[in-house]
Amino acid sequence: MVPAPPSRLRLGPDTGAAAIGFFDWQWCSDSGAELCDPARAQFKECLIVLDCLLDDQPVARVPYAWVDSTVPLLRGFIQGMPKMFGSVWLTRSFPVGRAGVQRQPGARFTGTTGAYDRRVASAAVTITEAIGDPPPLSDRPLVHTRHFPAWHPGEKAINKLVMAKTSNVEFSDIWCGEADLYFDGASDGDLAALAPVEIGQGYLFSYSETLEPGQRI
Amino acid sequence: MVPAPPSRLRLGPDTGAAAIGFFDWQWCSDSGAELCDPARAQFKECLIVLDCLLDDQPVARVPYAWVDSTVPLLRGFIQGMPKMFGSVWLTRSFPVGRAGVQRQPGARFTGTTGAYDRRVASAAVTITEAIGDPPPLSDRPLVHTRHFPAWHPGEKAINKLVMAKTSNVEFSDIWCGEADLYFDGASDGDLAALAPVEIGQGYLFSYSETLEPGQRI
Amino acid sequence: MVPAPPSRLRLGPDTGAAAIGFFDWQWCSDSGAELCDPARAQFKECLIVLDCLLDDQPVARVPYAWVDSTVPLLRGFIQGMPKMFGSVWLTRSFPVGRAGVQRQPGARFTGTTGAYDRRVASAAVTITEAIGDPPPLSDRPLVHTRHFPAWHPGEKAINKLVMAKTSNVEFSDIWCGEADLYFDGASDGDLAALAPVEIGQGYLFSYSETLEPGQRI
Amino acid sequence: MVPAPPSRLRLGPDTGAAAIGFFDWQWCSDSGAELCDPARAQFKECLIVLDCLLDDQPVARVPYAWVDSTVPLLRGFIQGMPKMFGSVWLTRSFPVGRAGVQRQPGARFTGTTGAYDRRVASAAVTITEAIGDPPPLSDRPLVHTRHFPAWHPGEKAINKLVMAKTSNVEFSDIWCGEADLYFDGASDGDLAALAPVEIGQGYLFSYSETLEPGQRI
Repeated sequence: MVPAPPSRLRLGPDTGAAAIGFFDWQWCSDSGAELCDPARAQFKECLIVLDCLLDDQPVARVPYAWVDSTVPLLRGFIQGMPKMFGSVWLTRSFPVGRAGVQRQPGARFTGTTGAYDRRVASAAVTITEAIGDPPPLSDRPLVHTRHFPAWHPGEKAINKLVMAKTSNVEFSDIWCGEADLYFDGASDGDLAALAPVEIGQGYLFSYSETLEPGQRI
Repeated sequence: MVPAPPSRLRLGPDTGAAAIGFFDWQWCSDSGAELCDPARAQFKECLIVLDCLLDDQPVARVPYAWVDSTVPLLRGFIQGMPKMFGSVWLTRSFPVGRAGVQRQPGARFTGTTGAYDRRVASAAVTITEAIGDPPPLSDRPLVHTRHFPAWHPGEKAINKLVMAKTSNVEFSDIWCGEADLYFDGASDGDLAALAPVEIGQGYLFSYSETLEPGQRI
Repeated sequence: MVPAPPSRLRLGPDTGAAAIGFFDWQWCSDSGAELCDPARAQFKECLIVLDCLLDDQPVARVPYAWVDSTVPLLRGFIQGMPKMFGSVWLTRSFPVGRAGVQRQPGARFTGTTGAYDRRVASAAVTITEAIGDPPPLSDRPLVHTRHFPAWHPGEKAINKLVMAKTSNVEFSDIWCGEADLYFDGASDGDLAALAPVEIGQGYLFSYSETLEPGQRI
Repeated sequence: MVPAPPSRLRLGPDTGAAAIGFFDWQWCSDSGAELCDPARAQFKECLIVLDCLLDDQPVARVPYAWVDSTVPLLRGFIQGMPKMFGSVWLTRSFPVGRAGVQRQPGARFTGTTGAYDRRVASAAVTITEAIGDPPPLSDRPLVHTRHFPAWHPGEKAINKLVMAKTSNVEFSDIWCGEADLYFDGASDGDLAALAPVEIGQGYLFSYSETLEPGQRI
């Protein structure tokens, strides 16, 4: 489903640098109405991010994403960030209790993604240190291809390179530590090509953004 | 499914005092193993609690509970606290962002419960004040009836009154404020009998416990 | 989300004639591969169909549809038939047993649709007679608006009127009888406008089609 | 969770003879009320059956079962046939269409079971011949252990051997053919012990029963 990226976009200097992220989202539109019905306002997401250059600007690209709710699935399709339906789970942090897993040295956080009875990926980080800077690739502008397939004979598909725009970006409570990553690309040849060859550090952080209209590039 | 409570148990002095609670749980057994697979370690629960007396001891009883996961559903059945399967959602609190809904005066938190395409209950609290004491009924021992139905002819059902035991109880970050409650008991006559006649304050809090073996009473 | 229909399309002569259908689908692409993984090959759908004219040709239009799987949800979006995620259930027919509900006079079949803890619609038909012709509106060409929203400033949304094309259409085992319809449009003003004013007959049938590329009109 | 079987029960003469079955159920209580709400009346089940002897009577025993609905999950627990929650899917048969997969020579039917992002088993049969007799093990009485764990100190768990009783048993439209079986027991040591060493024929059939109270043995 992901069309070939236009030629202004290419892999970054550290070829193959990539990240997998697991996110527990709560969102609302300007009115805040969705927050009154948390079944609408929450979803979980896993996405893979590749280090890329747009001309000479460091950017990132999302070849695969999974969400467990259809509103972000369709929203992503419209933005140029198509997503697949999956089950995504993350260890959460609560202020009390043995199972509370608070953000402190030695705590271990896991994210998992599955689809169609297959665990596609799971990752864990044992956090050791609070840090100040956002994790690699997490603050890069995302370059997407807005794709709308042709449907009637003679029609041409839409394939437009766009840069996602956000405002009000905040990072908070960023930790790092040693990471594990299990990855099963067997269900999909393109996904298999993204299997990790080396595992770097893992990170844990809170993040917020306001999604703005995209920018044609 | 809930058998008649034995006669040592009766409604409390403030007849009809009750609460509905919505919980986002993360749990583990002694080994902590479940935390490495958050799909197993997390569930959401809604329960109704009634103010009762066991002889002269203030206790509480849970006539209805819903969970969105089968391990706590069966665990509850074994404990004497049968639960139904439902969808339960709660507004969450994140440290950043317009949709983060942090615990501060004026923030509004909602819980919802549904089953079989019907919203059974939703409640919201707009928190105004941090307080020191646990909400009413939240720290009462629960009195359950362990019920195992008869299955073969001549067998007698088990109906044993037990008190749930917990240790390591912690409350944290308790807030109160004005509450709304929507309640739809139409799907079930016994549930309809619990429809609220007056709505008191709402509360928001963090809580943990270790579940211990029950106590025969 | 549904843009205003272009002016060649208007309500049919029997203004307000409409149907609601509930479908248990099994599908495959040309290779048949999906049939080996029934989790992919099956979904359930509810859709509302309105009697319309395209110029002077009797057609039908689908203002609302719900599916319980994301592949048909996205496929519909691309075809110009956007769908919402919901739970859809239909009484099934099995060749044996008291609960088998076979297609014979007096048998009662129910379809239900829900979303976000709300039952949007349920309909039932008690079949009395096998008939030869497809139900009203069931064999009309569908006219959709392929809609792809604008995303970057200055962009124009795509809104193209298309006619859905199918081949290999088969109807089988068609029955009719008296119908009930419960409909709750409260969640959505446009949906509320479709509330039934009169309930006609209900139908039960098997149906298959091959989906072909659309036709620009 | 499955306690050791009492000694009157032992493996059958063809040690290790076993079957895995996938079922699409529709059920109702005496009133038939559930059929009006198919979300309640339907579930899918996978179960493993072992060839056993009770004293000298050929019986079968179910060491593992998965269902996708909580009513049969709890009903099974009460009967002595505990089940786990999982996703179960089966190729269905429709009277029309390329994806209809009718029961005729060469048609291929698949069943799959998964839990916690893992496909536990999938089996397929390419049917070649209609036959008259029920498949091996499918018509054996099931011997269960009704188990209710101890919960308060000093209590003894219940472990009662019971024979499941059914009436109104009907088999219909039985076919056989070559079978494939994929089995992944890695999530559970006891389950791993049931991995197949040899795959026999596969069967496709319709079946109904009325569940009766059990018989103490």
